[in-house]
Amino acid sequence: MKVIELHESVTASNDRDADALRLWMKEEGTLLINLMSSPGSGKTTLLSKTIEMLKGRLKIAVMEADIASAVDAERIGKLGAESIQVHTDGMCHMDAGMTAEGLRSMDVKDTDLIFLENVGNLICPAEFDTGAGKKVMILSVPEGDDKPLKYPLMFRESDALVISKIDTLPYFNFDMKKCEKYARELNPDIHIFPVSAKSGEGMQAWTDYLLASVSEWKKK
Amino acid sequence: MKVIELHESVTASNDRDADALRLWMKEEGTLLINLMSSPGSGKTTLLSKTIEMLKGRLKIAVMEADIASAVDAERIGKLGAESIQVHTDGMCHMDAGMTAEGLRSMDVKDTDLIFLENVGNLICPAEFDTGAGKKVMILSVPEGDDKPLKYPLMFRESDALVISKIDTLPYFNFDMKKCEKYARELNPDIHIFPVSAKSGEGMQAWTDYLLASVSEWKKK
Repeated sequence: MKVIELHESVTASNDRDADALRLWMKEEGTLLINLMSSPGSGKTTLLSKTIEMLKGRLKIAVMEADIASAVDAERIGKLGAESIQVHTDGMCHMDAGMTAEGLRSMDVKDTDLIFLENVGNLICPAEFDTGAGKKVMILSVPEGDDKPLKYPLMFRESDALVISKIDTLPYFNFDMKKCEKYARELNPDIHIFPVSAKSGEGMQAWTDYLLASVSEWKKK
Repeated sequence: MKVIELHESVTASNDRDADALRLWMKEEGTLLINLMSSPGSGKTTLLSKTIEMLKGRLKIAVMEADIASAVDAERIGKLGAESIQVHTDGMCHMDAGMTAEGLRSMDVKDTDLIFLENVGNLICPAEFDTGAGKKVMILSVPEGDDKPLKYPLMFRESDALVISKIDTLPYFNFDMKKCEKYARELNPDIHIFPVSAKSGEGMQAWTDYLLASVSEWKKK
């Protein structure tokens, strides 16, 4: 399992780097998804279950971005999917240059779908275009239904919202309807997937969305 | 309930501002605690219960820092404690200048303990000295026991770690011993308080710590 130490990109324009990266992924027919959430929202567990369910249908790889440690990349690596760990040199987000550096050490050409598991944080990652084809955020039930009010940019920027750990709904005061309403007020087009990677509930709709997104990405 | 729009401090030295703020709080005999955690870790619920338990013993006030919304300050205000909401102009942390600006609109002199509820984030707030007399972080059980490995600076910088939502331990794969071990490896002197604001478990030790901290702050 590779661990790569990254440093903040020196180029002036992150947006230009991001557009170049998107073009590259387009030519390869590889969909890069920027996956963002708070720490402990269940990103790695969701990815593990997703990889398992799509085995044989999509070739998936994962770039894990963290400030320190390689615990997530090791978990993903055990599933037989390609995974690399990048360290962000203390930074709270990934930018396009850092993402490109990680991708250059991966087998992009033969991969259908690459998840960039961004640094756990609902603020900074929303502000930087990494060059991903889609942005997906996860909000876990224990975090509470009021998070769209507090972190509006993340909800506004995301193509899809995965509401994770729904098996724990009985133990938390989380109003699903209210959360969906807040999210759609910020972003009327957002796709919302309530899921439990533990029980499997909702995982079918989520993996169908991924299959459709990859096929659409390869087409145009 | 006051809402104050802040902007990043223009002074060159955050550390100098932080030291000046600490001196000011020392002269007033007011302990400022910088409370940091991920979004949804239960900061506001912990504070509500803490204020209720210490009513009549400590005069407590709260400065809620968020990018948007005033939901937390409204919750605290209902308890009869002074609370102000500050907005960070999109920034992922509070610095000393911003904290001072918030404090200037509060009744500092007659308050024993002020909680600065920092922006929900385990990364950026750890990097900035706000001028607080103590730093406390919260990690909630649903976030997982591996967080010290991923966000070492926050654990290293904190005087105390509150492990919240311990009433949900039966539903999550959270190893308390492992988490405490990781935290103490980074910070041997850290005080650790496993609590449930819901059931009240562990709250006595936590509020005793606050009482002792305030009395020590007023003394020296």
